[in-house]
Amino acid sequence: MNELELIRKLTPLLPTNDQVVAGAGDDCAVLDVGLANQWLLFKTDSIVEGIHFEKNAPPEKVGHKALARALSDIAAMGGIPTSALVTLALPAGFDPDYVEKIYLGMATLARRFNVAISGGETTSNPERLLISVAVVGTISKNHCARRTGAQVGDAIFVTGRLGGSLAGRHLEFEPRLKEGQWLVQHFSIHSMIDLSDGLASDLRHLMEAAGLGAELNKASIPISREAKLKAKTESPSSPPLLAALTDGEDFELLFTVASRDAVPLLDAWKAQFPDVPLTCVGRMTTERGLKLRDRHGALTFTGHGYIHFS
Amino acid sequence: MNELELIRKLTPLLPTNDQVVAGAGDDCAVLDVGLANQWLLFKTDSIVEGIHFEKNAPPEKVGHKALARALSDIAAMGGIPTSALVTLALPAGFDPDYVEKIYLGMATLARRFNVAISGGETTSNPERLLISVAVVGTISKNHCARRTGAQVGDAIFVTGRLGGSLAGRHLEFEPRLKEGQWLVQHFSIHSMIDLSDGLASDLRHLMEAAGLGAELNKASIPISREAKLKAKTESPSSPPLLAALTDGEDFELLFTVASRDAVPLLDAWKAQFPDVPLTCVGRMTTERGLKLRDRHGALTFTGHGYIHFS
Repeated sequence: MNELELIRKLTPLLPTNDQVVAGAGDDCAVLDVGLANQWLLFKTDSIVEGIHFEKNAPPEKVGHKALARALSDIAAMGGIPTSALVTLALPAGFDPDYVEKIYLGMATLARRFNVAISGGETTSNPERLLISVAVVGTISKNHCARRTGAQVGDAIFVTGRLGGSLAGRHLEFEPRLKEGQWLVQHFSIHSMIDLSDGLASDLRHLMEAAGLGAELNKASIPISREAKLKAKTESPSSPPLLAALTDGEDFELLFTVASRDAVPLLDAWKAQFPDVPLTCVGRMTTERGLKLRDRHGALTFTGHGYIHFS
Repeated sequence: MNELELIRKLTPLLPTNDQVVAGAGDDCAVLDVGLANQWLLFKTDSIVEGIHFEKNAPPEKVGHKALARALSDIAAMGGIPTSALVTLALPAGFDPDYVEKIYLGMATLARRFNVAISGGETTSNPERLLISVAVVGTISKNHCARRTGAQVGDAIFVTGRLGGSLAGRHLEFEPRLKEGQWLVQHFSIHSMIDLSDGLASDLRHLMEAAGLGAELNKASIPISREAKLKAKTESPSSPPLLAALTDGEDFELLFTVASRDAVPLLDAWKAQFPDVPLTCVGRMTTERGLKLRDRHGALTFTGHGYIHFS
């Protein structure tokens, strides 16, 4: 049983209440706690030694990644993170200086976005380090971008360049908080998600949530330098396009807007974020399934990104 | 370096912001997110196989405990929990039915207190199961009971009976949410904490937060049946009083009120919660340190409860 099947089995068991606007199945839980114009966003995310980072990874970067992943989920709804709690499950014989550096990496990132680290806890996990981060934030009720809501004909956009994140970017990426907030404040974002499992997998989440298909233009997909380099040197049989579609850990924003908004959005984006690439990679379709189009036609793409336990 | 020393080293590194009313060092983080009369409570807690529960523990009870611990921290401030997120870090080759039962145990408890489980995530932790729970809740600004605030002469109260929790109670305890809410709504609770590390250790947190000492009446400390039984059969050299002071995992409420409130509180409590023992165990003192008094006099008690990594 892989992660997706397990979640499908467990989700129906979960109790809800009248505060829950969106629960399992979106980037964050969305809660109505009684604020006049805002909802609360609530998210947890964890990273595990040997799975999400190597034992010899610099501890400041490990801390950075642990917090940045959770912040990226807040970004994917257009929200503003305000407070985080940190759980460190420490292996036997841990080095206190290493732990301090983890916290320094987290604290530096938190300060940059005015996020408080308002507590946390330490416990033991004898064989390996595990860090779990919980974040709360807020979002204007009018601006909350969810996974649901993509419409037929929507233009599909992605920030940054994709693939090859494991070469280093996964430990250093900047959560797209400013970009996500700007997007929801200036455009009607029909659906949005952050790229954690790879463009192909995460786009499928938007497709399934909307009951639609999607078509990507092969030539448009922005491929990272690392993915191109890796294809040239390490994996000559694996094209860099496949890396951009399935590598995962990009933590870029993937979103859809009405096609009439596509050009104005691109123009406004360039003025606002001149250093962050934004690319229209395709469009939402009535026909189910994910297709890749080139000048010869469109072929169904069945590959997935990273799936836990698979 | 033990857990307390590590926390002391890390706490100064943590960034804060103007939403944080109380951060590291209380039962929950207390956040002012803009609600007129309420604060948000925010807490994470985790349990680890082989440390907080045995591999062969019934999975429903493991799930119950994972959520109940976090709810107990909300109870210790008098708050109302509203939503929880669950992180399951699963060992290799986990049994999906076992995982489902964990969720069933959590869901049953959550429903009883109208807490939504509004999402979560699964990840891998190859050697052992780890469950981390994040909870948000609310508390009236006028009623928030914190660890700070104990005053000289305060009567010290404890709910339930203490010690021997590992015989089974630690997997089944009911978080004292109703009791905590009732206490803050009807009395001026000067300070409160839930008993996780043992009466001696947790009372020291209240003492340190207030800059005071405390004196406990040996004969008053309510000792559980399990602790008495264990002393008789398994550990004849370890008196049950020591178990009540240091065993930990009681998850009862420990709080202080002005001495003039002690008798009215006991009377009102008996009418409200006839099945839950409430005991006045001592008083806060100017003189630092924790003393145990019997008819021969008062002796300083230096024992601690459970401390991670020590």
